[in-house]
Amino acid sequence: MLNKNIFNYMACDSEYNEARIVLYGVPFDSTTSFRPGTRFAPNVIRNESYGLETYSPYQDKDLTECKIFDSGDIELPIGDTEKVLKAVEKRAEEIFSCNKIPFMIGGEHLVTLGAVRAAIKKYPDLYIVHFDAHTDLRDDYLGVKLSHAAVIKRCWELTGDGKIFQFGIRSGERYEFEWSKKHTFLNKFNFNNLSDVINQLKNKNVYFTLDLDVLDPSVFAGTGTPEPGGVSFCELMKAATEVCTKLNIIACDVNELSPVYDATGASTAAACKIIREMLLAL
Amino acid sequence: MLNKNIFNYMACDSEYNEARIVLYGVPFDSTTSFRPGTRFAPNVIRNESYGLETYSPYQDKDLTECKIFDSGDIELPIGDTEKVLKAVEKRAEEIFSCNKIPFMIGGEHLVTLGAVRAAIKKYPDLYIVHFDAHTDLRDDYLGVKLSHAAVIKRCWELTGDGKIFQFGIRSGERYEFEWSKKHTFLNKFNFNNLSDVINQLKNKNVYFTLDLDVLDPSVFAGTGTPEPGGVSFCELMKAATEVCTKLNIIACDVNELSPVYDATGASTAAACKIIREMLLAL
Amino acid sequence: MLNKNIFNYMACDSEYNEARIVLYGVPFDSTTSFRPGTRFAPNVIRNESYGLETYSPYQDKDLTECKIFDSGDIELPIGDTEKVLKAVEKRAEEIFSCNKIPFMIGGEHLVTLGAVRAAIKKYPDLYIVHFDAHTDLRDDYLGVKLSHAAVIKRCWELTGDGKIFQFGIRSGERYEFEWSKKHTFLNKFNFNNLSDVINQLKNKNVYFTLDLDVLDPSVFAGTGTPEPGGVSFCELMKAATEVCTKLNIIACDVNELSPVYDATGASTAAACKIIREMLLAL
Amino acid sequence: MLNKNIFNYMACDSEYNEARIVLYGVPFDSTTSFRPGTRFAPNVIRNESYGLETYSPYQDKDLTECKIFDSGDIELPIGDTEKVLKAVEKRAEEIFSCNKIPFMIGGEHLVTLGAVRAAIKKYPDLYIVHFDAHTDLRDDYLGVKLSHAAVIKRCWELTGDGKIFQFGIRSGERYEFEWSKKHTFLNKFNFNNLSDVINQLKNKNVYFTLDLDVLDPSVFAGTGTPEPGGVSFCELMKAATEVCTKLNIIACDVNELSPVYDATGASTAAACKIIREMLLAL
Amino acid sequence: MLNKNIFNYMACDSEYNEARIVLYGVPFDSTTSFRPGTRFAPNVIRNESYGLETYSPYQDKDLTECKIFDSGDIELPIGDTEKVLKAVEKRAEEIFSCNKIPFMIGGEHLVTLGAVRAAIKKYPDLYIVHFDAHTDLRDDYLGVKLSHAAVIKRCWELTGDGKIFQFGIRSGERYEFEWSKKHTFLNKFNFNNLSDVINQLKNKNVYFTLDLDVLDPSVFAGTGTPEPGGVSFCELMKAATEVCTKLNIIACDVNELSPVYDATGASTAAACKIIREMLLAL
Amino acid sequence: MLNKNIFNYMACDSEYNEARIVLYGVPFDSTTSFRPGTRFAPNVIRNESYGLETYSPYQDKDLTECKIFDSGDIELPIGDTEKVLKAVEKRAEEIFSCNKIPFMIGGEHLVTLGAVRAAIKKYPDLYIVHFDAHTDLRDDYLGVKLSHAAVIKRCWELTGDGKIFQFGIRSGERYEFEWSKKHTFLNKFNFNNLSDVINQLKNKNVYFTLDLDVLDPSVFAGTGTPEPGGVSFCELMKAATEVCTKLNIIACDVNELSPVYDATGASTAAACKIIREMLLAL
Repeated sequence: MLNKNIFNYMACDSEYNEARIVLYGVPFDSTTSFRPGTRFAPNVIRNESYGLETYSPYQDKDLTECKIFDSGDIELPIGDTEKVLKAVEKRAEEIFSCNKIPFMIGGEHLVTLGAVRAAIKKYPDLYIVHFDAHTDLRDDYLGVKLSHAAVIKRCWELTGDGKIFQFGIRSGERYEFEWSKKHTFLNKFNFNNLSDVINQLKNKNVYFTLDLDVLDPSVFAGTGTPEPGGVSFCELMKAATEVCTKLNIIACDVNELSPVYDATGASTAAACKIIREMLLAL
Repeated sequence: MLNKNIFNYMACDSEYNEARIVLYGVPFDSTTSFRPGTRFAPNVIRNESYGLETYSPYQDKDLTECKIFDSGDIELPIGDTEKVLKAVEKRAEEIFSCNKIPFMIGGEHLVTLGAVRAAIKKYPDLYIVHFDAHTDLRDDYLGVKLSHAAVIKRCWELTGDGKIFQFGIRSGERYEFEWSKKHTFLNKFNFNNLSDVINQLKNKNVYFTLDLDVLDPSVFAGTGTPEPGGVSFCELMKAATEVCTKLNIIACDVNELSPVYDATGASTAAACKIIREMLLAL
Repeated sequence: MLNKNIFNYMACDSEYNEARIVLYGVPFDSTTSFRPGTRFAPNVIRNESYGLETYSPYQDKDLTECKIFDSGDIELPIGDTEKVLKAVEKRAEEIFSCNKIPFMIGGEHLVTLGAVRAAIKKYPDLYIVHFDAHTDLRDDYLGVKLSHAAVIKRCWELTGDGKIFQFGIRSGERYEFEWSKKHTFLNKFNFNNLSDVINQLKNKNVYFTLDLDVLDPSVFAGTGTPEPGGVSFCELMKAATEVCTKLNIIACDVNELSPVYDATGASTAAACKIIREMLLAL
Repeated sequence: MLNKNIFNYMACDSEYNEARIVLYGVPFDSTTSFRPGTRFAPNVIRNESYGLETYSPYQDKDLTECKIFDSGDIELPIGDTEKVLKAVEKRAEEIFSCNKIPFMIGGEHLVTLGAVRAAIKKYPDLYIVHFDAHTDLRDDYLGVKLSHAAVIKRCWELTGDGKIFQFGIRSGERYEFEWSKKHTFLNKFNFNNLSDVINQLKNKNVYFTLDLDVLDPSVFAGTGTPEPGGVSFCELMKAATEVCTKLNIIACDVNELSPVYDATGASTAAACKIIREMLLAL
Repeated sequence: MLNKNIFNYMACDSEYNEARIVLYGVPFDSTTSFRPGTRFAPNVIRNESYGLETYSPYQDKDLTECKIFDSGDIELPIGDTEKVLKAVEKRAEEIFSCNKIPFMIGGEHLVTLGAVRAAIKKYPDLYIVHFDAHTDLRDDYLGVKLSHAAVIKRCWELTGDGKIFQFGIRSGERYEFEWSKKHTFLNKFNFNNLSDVINQLKNKNVYFTLDLDVLDPSVFAGTGTPEPGGVSFCELMKAATEVCTKLNIIACDVNELSPVYDATGASTAAACKIIREMLLAL
Repeated sequence: MLNKNIFNYMACDSEYNEARIVLYGVPFDSTTSFRPGTRFAPNVIRNESYGLETYSPYQDKDLTECKIFDSGDIELPIGDTEKVLKAVEKRAEEIFSCNKIPFMIGGEHLVTLGAVRAAIKKYPDLYIVHFDAHTDLRDDYLGVKLSHAAVIKRCWELTGDGKIFQFGIRSGERYEFEWSKKHTFLNKFNFNNLSDVINQLKNKNVYFTLDLDVLDPSVFAGTGTPEPGGVSFCELMKAATEVCTKLNIIACDVNELSPVYDATGASTAAACKIIREMLLAL
């Protein structure tokens, strides 16, 4: 008798009960201000992951030795942002309730808010590590508060001051940079202070959100608002691996791949490999 | 002294006061269910219109002899659908208030609802002629009522039974086709009954909404949900010209071009030419 | 508890035991002479099928009322053609052994040979209906007998004279056209004689193989060897529906979509819709 | 000992002395008003010709039985239009001087002027058959007389009234259509009057210039100014074959393919096949 | 009453009288030797500039605080190079005559010659700083003197020896490199000597011409002749900012973006950001 | 009398008898596991080479001063891997027999095996220098031994232990890395140990095989399995030049460019330039 067609990120084929990490995709991009298309990312990432090996010569580990379950994508009511965030929150809560790590693949960056809402219920003293090209600290975007350009501001409303650590930031309005001086730890352009922050956050419960546009467009052009002057792939891989290895990551996400703009496939390959290294490091 | 850089659909450069027709763009696509991107259409249409001539050998008329004003795009709060529709309604009302014809370039099909709301205030006995591949008669789409897949149903809630005439329809759920039998005049696949309908609607006030995906994907692949088996370019040009010449069109729109998926430029060229022929015919 | 991520052609989610039709993909393209890439077709077709509705207004039927199982893709030893054909044959035999209809999605056209080998074991008096732009009747291609340009010749070696009916053919070497006069029923350019052939094949066991490049490149450019001058989408849809409705189709395949060359997505949409109409007609 | 790498249109490998027809490419596009790129056409056409067969089932003829020599591309001083036309004229004269038929592959349409200059020296009573979407009858384009939008006007200055027969025209300024009424035979939109014209031109010396944008953009989007509403591939193939079979064609050209905009490859395939049919018909 | 549709580079919306800097586009590419398409750059740059912020965290300055006017594109007689250069010269002169800084967006590099002609009339002791991958020091290109491959040689004919400083050069014929030893200061591969040159040119009137292909193709593939081995985005941003801040730039240009070849959008994003940083630094 | 159309890599136009180096293309990609398309590389490389200069400012040498013959592509029986390897071996032997250096342009990496078979017959004590992202040391790939993922393992079966030196490797299965410890000298990620190896191999006969995917996808995305984290263009150019200058290279190849995936043209430009530098260095 033939089997149903299962479609996973490569090697993420544990049984749910045994899994330590649970992947889920959130194909949402309706508040994207410039070029939409991130809704296609989760499936494209699953598909292209098979171009990689399961083994990492960087960490000398293999995905086939990990316990990971891919629960597929959430079905989304496109056009109603609050309902979308509720659906994300619900999925994350389900996974938390089984003491597993929810690993979300976006979608646009706003989806992080749904997962952070679930995380902060379980871990009220939550810290956030945030890699991005953009501050994402707007009050609102053209009058809309639930916008991907405001997602970290929305998260801050939940965590309060001093809990959010931002790296690689190279774009935003002047007032966002000003505001950040009092409320978050914003590190411009690179990961220079990452080691210090890692020491500071030892033993804390940390949510890690990675907007892939922190990468330079030469590596990662497939995104809605490419911003030249970003970090290299190796710099990001090293930083993300460190965060996942040395901190107590209770949940994380990788977002803002827009396959429509990835004409060469290089951006998708970068996303797949970063996810592999994070899964191995967790 | 140098002038500011004005950017119009070709030859649409009358002064506002003298214009009979006023163009406006609505770069919105947040409820698009499959492949987004229509938000880029208005500017791409303006830009590519210069590949055409202003003269039509079909109608023996020239745009340079018409009085048309291009009022540019509406600035939109992306992510809040109701606010977007309000902004569309307001622009259409402004144009109606000067006794001009509002000619909207979408954006996704939902934007029609904003313009129809404005139209029905001025013309309570409004009729709608609708060209499309899809019925757009859903009750809701994944729980969302303001969706491009439900826009004609939302318009029907304003006009009531017997006022909406649909042509070229070749896709929808079974229940939509069933429902249409009692509430709209739905003509499948082509324009065969168009002449009859035109006779029937003589002297009525008519809103004309044209979803370009009524065209076959061989002509018009640059759209969110390409549906093979559509009408040819010449069939559409003839039908749209007839509607605009023989009926009392009080407002109209052309929507659902998605330039991101128009790899060859053929879809944009088709949109530009249909708009030229409609402007000349009005 | 969360479910695994199942990935089907839309609505093909019956249980295996209840299914009448079983889909399977064969992502193989190693003998393609001109532009490879058909190996990506099965997954792209599954993905893009969700841009269509399950209901067909042409046949007034709905996929949700059919019993179809999607068994996913065969894993292939790329680079060893004979092993690939063995794997196809095995999958088809499994499905035949449960008295279900195997419906293969290629892949390049050579994969048909594996399925025909299985079919002829069960139905020794097998007839083949073949839609294609090319004769596929070469003796060999650059010395290689297992080539997609020779697949129908290889099938003829199994069926013998008078069993193969070809339609839409508009490309081949002179000697192929000459040879066909004695051994197959080759109909050039269109489906003009299809009704006669259908009458002739009533009550026979028929394998139906559809090379999508029978379509004109305006509709279907996404293929290895686009050949201008083909049939329109509606002509093919009508012909394929007739074959599937009026003949006793014991197995079938749809092949030669090459998504890499489908820059606009129109070819994939055409493939998805033809498959829907065939599934509904079977 | 190994041979040099010869690069021809398929099967055009006669020795120069034996050839009846001589191909040459003119990779020039510097006066193109909208989207350049035709300079790449000759080499792309050579390359993609190998996706076709040498045999035509339409005419039952085979290129391998013809005597054709491909003399490669002319090296062009890009940026100096008059020098380019001189170089074209010189190549055509060389071929005429050996009593062979020069068959030019453009490049943009202006290159025709160079070949017509050579032709009219040898055949002072020259007639021109012109297939195109555009009139090409401007006096000048933005002050420039040597423009692809004015090429037929420039040719008329050489031939005088009543010698130029235009077909498929669907775009131009009003004054061009007016002017044509007295000076050329302009047939709008299609080939309806072609048979009459062929009868009229029997025994005349005819130059045949084919701007491929006479085709509809669904078939041929890969061009600088796609103009919807054109003829189908089969209509063009039939018309071009008739012209080449029934008239005394002393030289011809095929122009305006712009491979950069041929995202799907369908336009190039159409160009290759039209050239094959013309070569077989000549 | 509705307003006309103004289309600027973001935030460049001062009144002309108040502006210190005046942008203008020159959509010309007819002497481009390899892959044309730079004519589309000015409009694409305007459009994509809205993907950036107006604020620069590098310089801590904001475009909304600058006085810049965008005077749109020059209308060009395509195909007549000398007329094009005259039109550029005229625009630059108009801007110089109001004591403003002309900032040109190309187009191909030859357009620089028109602007330098205007500059040297006003500032006879003119110096030129030139960033480029190519020497641009040919005597002529295939016999044509007004070619983008010869533009700096043409400028040298106006300035004389010792006035032109070239950086990042990594391509040219041997004789160009030889010639430069006596006539210009040519720095191969990078910006290593830039600080020295800046000291040397303090208080001089300097024209700054930036051919974006000085960037590595990983950052900037969207150009006619991509030349691997170039500088990184951050290196260029730093160097260009220094030139604009520390020297007395009386006019400048940014050229050779070819959007047709910018499949990913990364090149356009790089161009937009460099222009922002230069505008802020001036 | 006109000449035949010769099509070479730029400036590789010596007579065969005088040439020291002989280029040949092998357009084969049938065992490619992920994204095929390398078969188009040789012709695209020839075509795009004309975007470069013949002179290298890095080495201060010019191709016009070298003696190189381009013998075109081998005609291949696609679908029969062993026959393909035989054809490669034969071409290499012919070139060796005239005491020239065979320089192969792939195609997929498996083609190296044919050339190494020929090389080892002439130079039994053969050493191999191998640049690649992947180990290529599989026993087989899905049961197929002649696979591009196993090509270096197949070469090792000919050379034995200690003869193969691998650089830049960053992907493979765990067992491949383990196996390499005893049988090859595998250097992960970069060229750090290259100088030592060069000293060690002085005076040996060395085959140099360069899989271009050793480059980072930001530079070289146009390949079947892009693997982020690779070397930069300048690092590769320096390393390849050193190998070709300081070692006794008796044959070499450059492979795995897949133009279909080189949407921007940057990958092809990189391949062309590396080949130029290698030809100059040899």
